[in-house]
Order: sequence, then structure tokens, then C-alpha cells
Amino acid sequence: MAAPAVAVDNLNPKVLKCEYAVRGEVVMHAQRLQQQLQTQPGSLPFDEILYCNIGNPQSLGQQPITFFREVLALCDHPCLLEREETKSLFSADAISRAKNILASIPGRATGAYSHSQGIKGLRDAIAAGITARDGFPANADDIFLTDGASPGVHMMMQLLIRNEKDGIFCPIPQYPLYSASIALHGGALVPYYLDESTGWGLEISDLKKQLEDARSKGIDVRALVVINPGNPTGQVLAEENQRDIVKFCKNEGLVLLADEVYQENIYVDNKKFNSFKKIARSMGYNEDDLTLVSFQSVSKGYYGECGKRGGYMEITGFSAPVREQIYKVASVNLCSNITGQILASLVMNAPKVGDASYASYKAEKDGILQSLARRAKALEDAFNNLEGITCNKAEGAMYLFPQIRLPQKAIEAAKAAKKAPDAFYALRLLETTGIVVVPGSGFGQVPGTWHIRCTILPQEEKIPAIISHFKAFHESFMAKYRD
Amino acid sequence: MAAPAVAVDNLNPKVLKCEYAVRGEVVMHAQRLQQQLQTQPGSLPFDEILYCNIGNPQSLGQQPITFFREVLALCDHPCLLEREETKSLFSADAISRAKNILASIPGRATGAYSHSQGIKGLRDAIAAGITARDGFPANADDIFLTDGASPGVHMMMQLLIRNEKDGIFCPIPQYPLYSASIALHGGALVPYYLDESTGWGLEISDLKKQLEDARSKGIDVRALVVINPGNPTGQVLAEENQRDIVKFCKNEGLVLLADEVYQENIYVDNKKFNSFKKIARSMGYNEDDLTLVSFQSVSKGYYGECGKRGGYMEITGFSAPVREQIYKVASVNLCSNITGQILASLVMNAPKVGDASYASYKAEKDGILQSLARRAKALEDAFNNLEGITCNKAEGAMYLFPQIRLPQKAIEAAKAAKKAPDAFYALRLLETTGIVVVPGSGFGQVPGTWHIRCTILPQEEKIPAIISHFKAFHESFMAKYRD
Repeated sequence: MAAPAVAVDNLNPKVLKCEYAVRGEVVMHAQRLQQQLQTQPGSLPFDEILYCNIGNPQSLGQQPITFFREVLALCDHPCLLEREETKSLFSADAISRAKNILASIPGRATGAYSHSQGIKGLRDAIAAGITARDGFPANADDIFLTDGASPGVHMMMQLLIRNEKDGIFCPIPQYPLYSASIALHGGALVPYYLDESTGWGLEISDLKKQLEDARSKGIDVRALVVINPGNPTGQVLAEENQRDIVKFCKNEGLVLLADEVYQENIYVDNKKFNSFKKIARSMGYNEDDLTLVSFQSVSKGYYGECGKRGGYMEITGFSAPVREQIYKVASVNLCSNITGQILASLVMNAPKVGDASYASYKAEKDGILQSLARRAKALEDAFNNLEGITCNKAEGAMYLFPQIRLPQKAIEAAKAAKKAPDAFYALRLLETTGIVVVPGSGFGQVPGTWHIRCTILPQEEKIPAIISHFKAFHESFMAKYRD
Repeated sequence: MAAPAVAVDNLNPKVLKCEYAVRGEVVMHAQRLQQQLQTQPGSLPFDEILYCNIGNPQSLGQQPITFFREVLALCDHPCLLEREETKSLFSADAISRAKNILASIPGRATGAYSHSQGIKGLRDAIAAGITARDGFPANADDIFLTDGASPGVHMMMQLLIRNEKDGIFCPIPQYPLYSASIALHGGALVPYYLDESTGWGLEISDLKKQLEDARSKGIDVRALVVINPGNPTGQVLAEENQRDIVKFCKNEGLVLLADEVYQENIYVDNKKFNSFKKIARSMGYNEDDLTLVSFQSVSKGYYGECGKRGGYMEITGFSAPVREQIYKVASVNLCSNITGQILASLVMNAPKVGDASYASYKAEKDGILQSLARRAKALEDAFNNLEGITCNKAEGAMYLFPQIRLPQKAIEAAKAAKKAPDAFYALRLLETTGIVVVPGSGFGQVPGTWHIRCTILPQEEKIPAIISHFKAFHESFMAKYRD
């Protein structure tokens, strides 16, 4: 009789240590309740589970952008391009775009592994899109197409982290992909706190203090993660602030890892998205001055094509030998999926004025973004109207991250239930309303404060009901636990 | 002035150590030559680069299976299902299949992140396909859909490898994904040699010896990788041999990692594919007896849909707490791409007798597999007719792995050029003929023997020219270096 091959106590401890709250305890509980709703309808105080835990727009009813899907369908089944019926089924510019894309793929083979960085013609298109966005040139050789943004982040952590003394600066609160990836690669997360009282601002003086502190503990801080627009916090960084960050990374020799996946999601008139590359170049900093990675994804924006797993990273300021190592790691996984690659090229080169699809494309895009802005505002106002809750504006991204001042009694009840207080709150919310949110403890927060992250993604007609259910729950929770 | 942020000497040493020959030195050189052919046509002794380095059928002209692509196009753009023209453009069973698939996806949202294991309905379909294949039940909860097989392999290595004292048994020669993944995760590759003289047979006595040897060095051997049909070796394991392997893994408490991505690629009448799960269950071994992972991919088979990055792993014999850890790691990357998920469900449930597409589907499938068998035979015969080359039969998979007895003079010339002798040979072959193969040293081989891996994938009409170019090159190489 052999010993059991694998048990939890002989697994890689880095795997055990890793946590990913966006699909953690609350979500697993929600899945169980969803199953219960199917097998025993009417057994719960709500009829459906509302997944506000994850930035997954199409799961909540957002429709894909027609033009993008037309092009994907034609590239999946190029025979369609030879048929007469296709002209009445697809828009003219989708047909010509699909033809151009197929012409840029060696052998028109959408079923072949591509170059490990992605199809050259698609990278050219993306580089052109970045150039148009920033007003500074981008190069196809700097683009690595990836299955969503996550694999790019993992690749960078894998490259930079040698051992537990290598540190990565992360904002707190942060998107837990970063903490999970750092844990999986065995490094140290060095926190810097975003200041809730100034709309989740980033203080360079705090960065400096944290850096000194980490260095005094023997941590070699290698990179700084910045998420702009912020996740879970929703702030859009001011240009001035971005310049400070760029200067700080340059002076301290840190790689700047810029999570820019929400670049299309901006909901306020007085802010706009500036890529860190644009900021750096406009300061006169070139490849010799700053090592910079920008992550982009087809999962976010107004397109929200999470299931397609498309994305890219643009790397600049790396030496040729280091780039070879990045290429090698990319090549071990052969390439990212071609559908995602095509979609990444489309979102960076959407229809333009004069294109046959432009009017309908623009109507779809504006409809989604304007509705998201209204939803963000409605939810923000609702949170701010509740006892003990304050919520910063979502200037961008897809989330609100309200702070909940939990009564001491609730904190004690959570302790008795062996839960973090905000997890306790989120589980009660789920069990009462079917609304799934992520406890702030999954993102990190100033000790002693409690938050939840709630997406702004439920369809607009559902928002009033969500608000009223949330309000009723919160009031009864506070009534029960008020000190 | 700050120190440069990143340099090769401060990267993760595991990344530096990792090698991936399938896209290594020879291929990079080929890409340079391809560029030269474009900018200076006629400047090389050949007109095109023939990529025989990688199992990438569609890059060499293989056409996708029509039915699969029809379904993908309809799922990408479901509006088509509401249009009358669609009935004349698509086969009736592709339309009904797409409708069924969409109905199995929550909200019909092919653009949403799915469950981290993949869409439940698609996993049900895959489990049904496995059940039909094996005659033993499979369970959707055991299926993890992945972007090709590679991420599943990485996930298992990440789970099992704690440090450099954790060993993974790998066949030599092996597909370098395994050596690369073990290096990236910091474990030890424990080799077992396939016996070229018996058609790449696997000797259990050798396994036992290697295991004892590794254990005596303090290596905790955790898993055994077996690739069946073999890559790069092309053998199809005999049932008897598979039973021995299963028994060995059970007795020694090893996880059996079964790479079964070539399960549809069998070219000889006297062999058939048996999954390791079928073998284990037919021996009466259940989940308590054997921890088993089977990897499957849409990249191989007769479909060869490499660019779609679809695949799955079926895990059995893991305890619930370990499965939770696997789920957690999968959830950090959210999910695999939905197009690949759909395709994985299709290849495991292809059209059946009576379906509208069946005749054309079967003709496409048989045409591809019969042609691959003829190509394998023609190339094998050609290799065996050359001085100093012996080549085992490709019973399955997509490769030949001939041994080349290089003259001493060639070995010395390679040494002078600072190349492994087989890499030297492969580079000369490339520069003379444009044919890209991978040196055996990238896969591992018995020390002092030299091989190349050559795919059987160039289109059939090109095979005679490839053979004659290869022959001419080999003869001149031998004439130059013959001792």
C-alpha cells in the first residue's frame, strides 16, 4: 500500500498561500445558492443570484459590439467571404476588415499557432492604435499578445521575482490578481496605500516612505504596479500624479507595471485617460529612462469581451537580452488564442467616421458607456445615503468600493463566525438579497476599515431593485447589530 | 542616475534555465532567413521556409474541419441564427449544435468569463465524449478546460513542485514543454529512457532503477509523465505496457500525468489508442488507487486547431481539498477562452452517423488522417534510405525522430562552431534547404546519439521535393564530413 500521492500538506506552499477573493468564499457560496434555487425554487428570499463580484459585463446581459462579432465570425469561417448571401448578412466594413485580417495572417490560417508574440499584422494594427491614442510612436516588436491581461502579469512576476526578498509595490486596495501572482511566484508584496479621503489619491511621499521601509528590511523592490483607472477604487489618476509616478520609478530604478485595462471606462467629464507611456514620452523620457509595461485587455472597456481572453502587453525600456527571455517564456506556451488576438486588434482600431458600421458601432458604444456612468452614479448615491457607508465616485473602471463602518457588535458576530467582518457582511448580504459582492479584505484596506467591492454592471433596469434590496438589507443589518 | 531596473543577471534564474527548443535557435534563424527571402528574393538557395519544427498543421496548409468552424462562427455571432440566409450558408446540424451550445451557456453569453473550470454544459458534453470513448464514466466536475494543453501541464507542475528536491519523471526523449515547465517551477526532471531499439518502448525495470536512483539522491519523485502517442517519438503504447505503468504509479504513489493530445493520430492498423483512465478502470483501479491527469488539446488530432488554444485536463483521484487548490489556481486566470472551450466540446462530440454533416465531416477527417499516414511512411522510408540514418515508424502523433550517426569530423566542426552536433546539422539543413527541424538535443536523447524531430505535416504534394532536397543535403553533408 503506497502513501497517497498528493495531499494538501505536500502541495507547493506558494499555491496554498495564494488567495483570489474575486472568485473566493462568497462566490462559492453564491454558486451553491444558485444550485439550490434551481433544485428548490422559492426556498430562498430571492429569485436570482446577481453577480456583482466580477467585471464580467456580458454575464449580466451586456450585448457584444456587433462589428467585432461580425469580423470574428468571418475570420472563424472564411468560406463565408466567398458567398453572395454574406453581403446581406454582414456589414461591408466587417467584410473588408475580415479580408484584411486574413490577408495579414500567414496562409490565412486562423487555426495555426502564430508567432509567440502574436500575428505580426495584428501587432502592427495595435501599434498603430496605440500611436493614434498617445501621439507617440509604438512598435509592433514591443507588443506581446496574451490570453487576457492576466498571463502578461504572471509573465512579468515570473521574470522579476527570484525569491521572497524580491518585492513588488502594489496599491492597497489592489486587484487580487497581483497579490495572487506575487504569492504564486514567491515574492513579497510591498504595499502603498491609496488615500480614500482624497478620492483614492496616490501620495509620492508615502511611496518613498514605504520604499525605504522595505529596503531597510532587505527587500529588493523591483517593480511598481499602478492600476489606472483604479480597480477596485475607480479613480482616474491626474496627469500630475502620473508624472510623479514616472519620475519616482525612473529615479528608483523600478519597472513600472501599468494596468491600463480600463482605459475606455471613464465616466466623468473632467478626467481623461493618459497612458503612462504617453506621460513618460511627454516628459522627454525614452526607453533608456524608464522600463515600462502596459497591460490592456479585451475584457473591459465598452466591449467587455471577457470570454474571448484577448489582451496584450506593450513592453518598452527592456534590453535585448531581457526581451529574449520574455520571448522565450512566451514561446513555451506557443501563442495566445487567435480569436482573442484578432479582437485585441479590433478594439485598438474600432470603426472610424465614414466606415459603414460607424454609426451603429458608435451608438452601441455610447449607449453602453453612458449607461455605465448612470449606473455608477445611481449606486454611488445609494451607498452614500445609507447609515455608516461612504462611497467615493467611480470616475472610471467598473466598480464602487464603499467603506462600511461596521458596528462593534457586527465585528464580534463576525469573529464568532470566524469571518473577516466585511466577509461576514457580504455573506449576510448574499443570503438575504442574492447580491454577490467581494469583501474589501480580498483587496487589502487600511487596517480597521471595512469595504465591499460592487460592480456597476447589472443592467440598468435592475438597478432600482438592487438599490432597494440593498437598502432594506443594510437597514436590518444595522438594526440588528447597532451598538 | 538609477541603476538599470532589469538586466539578465538579475532575472529569475529559473527563467534563464528554462529552454524550449521547438521555438529555439534553429527557428529564430529560420525567421531571419524568411525575412531575408522577403527583402532579397533569390538570395538563398531555396524559395520558402518549410516549418517542420512544430506540430502546427494549418500553418502548412491543412484546412480546418468545416463543421467545427461553422459552429464557431454561429456562436461568435448568434444573430446569424435569426436570419433566413443562414440556412443556406450553414449545415443544419451546425445550426442546431450552435443553438444547443448557446442554450448551455448562461445568458447565451459567449463573451462572458465562464466558471473557472469551463462552461458546465460543455464539460458535460466532454464527459459524455470521454465516456463513449472509454466505456467508463467520466464526470464534468473532473474536467478543467484550458487554453491548449500547456496551461494544464503548468498548473500541475505548479501544484506539485515545492523545491528542487521534488522530481517529475519524464520520458527521454520528451516534449520540451515538460522540461521547460519543470525548470520554470524549480523542480528536478528525473529521466527515464525510451528504448529506440524496440520502437521507443518503455521498460518498467528502467523506471524502477531510475526511481531508486533519484530517491537515493534525496529526490521526492511526485509524478510520472507519459506521452501516448509519443512526442517526439511517435510510438503508440501497447496495452500491456500501459497496465505496467498504471501499476507502477499506483505502487509508488506517483501522480500519472498522461499527455494524450495525439489520441486521434494513429496511423497503423495493429495499434489503437487507449486512455490511461480506461486502462486503470479496466484493471479495477478506481479513484482511491490512482491519481491521474489526462491532457487533451484541440491543437492536434485531425482537426489541428492550434490557434484556437482549446484543451482540457481530466483529473481523477485527487482529494477534495487538493481539488479546491487546483480550482483556486484556475480561478486566478478566470477561465480559458470560450471559443477554445466550444471547440474542445466539439472534437469530443463530432458529427455522428445520421447528422447532416456526417458524410462531409468524415470525408475531411479520413482524408487528413490517411494523408498523414502516407506522409509519415514516405518520410520514414526516405530517412531509412540515407547513409547513417535510422528511423522508427511513426505509429502515431505528428513526428519522426530519426537517429543520425554523425561522422566524427562533423562532431568536431560542430564543437568548433559551439553547437550541439545535431543543432549544427539542423542549422546546415536549414541554410541549404529551408527545411526547419528541431535538434534531438532539445528533447533529450541517449548521450552520444543524435537525432532530429521532423513533423509529417507538409502538404502531401510537397513531400517528394522535401525528400529530394533532404537527400541531396544529407549526401553533401556526409561527403563533406565523412570520416
